[in-house]
Amino acid sequence: MTNNLYIQALNSKAFASFGDVLDVSGQPDKIINQGLCQRYHDRAEIDFSNGRSGISLFKAEPRNLPYKLDMMERHPLGSQAFIPMTYAAFLITVAQDENNTPAHPIAFLSEPGQAINFHRNIWHGVLTPLQGSGLFAVIDRIGPEENLEEVFFETPYWVFQENK
Amino acid sequence: MTNNLYIQALNSKAFASFGDVLDVSGQPDKIINQGLCQRYHDRAEIDFSNGRSGISLFKAEPRNLPYKLDMMERHPLGSQAFIPMTYAAFLITVAQDENNTPAHPIAFLSEPGQAINFHRNIWHGVLTPLQGSGLFAVIDRIGPEENLEEVFFETPYWVFQENK
Repeated sequence: MTNNLYIQALNSKAFASFGDVLDVSGQPDKIINQGLCQRYHDRAEIDFSNGRSGISLFKAEPRNLPYKLDMMERHPLGSQAFIPMTYAAFLITVAQDENNTPAHPIAFLSEPGQAINFHRNIWHGVLTPLQGSGLFAVIDRIGPEENLEEVFFETPYWVFQENK
Repeated sequence: MTNNLYIQALNSKAFASFGDVLDVSGQPDKIINQGLCQRYHDRAEIDFSNGRSGISLFKAEPRNLPYKLDMMERHPLGSQAFIPMTYAAFLITVAQDENNTPAHPIAFLSEPGQAINFHRNIWHGVLTPLQGSGLFAVIDRIGPEENLEEVFFETPYWVFQENK
């Protein structure tokens, strides 16, 4: 069945063509506060065509697997970062673009402590926590212009935990 | 003993002269994602004299109370937001400015799910988680100019849980 997706582990390399993974793997860039704090510096490509940065909070309903992916969206004017405010994994769906339509979607599962930043104009599913409070900070472009494209699938995809 | 500080609950009104409290109290500004996500829109005053926005991760050692506050710092070129990535309280210390020195410090304790944004040039103590992973996302100004002033107190303050 071609419309089944199986979750992959999130990491920077696998996610590179869609966005940035923000986590504290590897060495910190700087040790601050008398040795008591590690700074992993400037890890997201914030990219706005105009407008300005804003911080908003999203509170989303946790979802269950298998998850029905029936819509994807993109933001032509700016990147969008999702920072989980609970130490919990969340589901991330992204797709390539083919003729202004999302194609070949991929599903990633984060690890607790990972945040992500979608690059500008990357197709992605809506925020889908699987557990925890569903609370996220979102850093995205604030501006008056319309910045949302949505595509609904005729046949939805189903996202499963793992390949069986 | 005048150098003892007792923790106050964090809320927008009490914190207003120092920065923004980001939480999901009150009504959301918008319901998105087919009713499954509440957006609390644009809740931080991001204020940079130049440079650009960046997202960094800080991993700080959790501290214990009473906490010795022996230094405060400020960033003359930009605001700085701290987003906890664990659903846990953290300690926030701020002060007024008197002749370029921090004066009359105040200690706040957040609730789980609250983030804060220090306004530009506000005196504050270093990041002080009290529990959890110590992992935070930080949205601050990225730029080459020096953006840190520190003042060490001759007599440190001690921060206690509550007024006894």
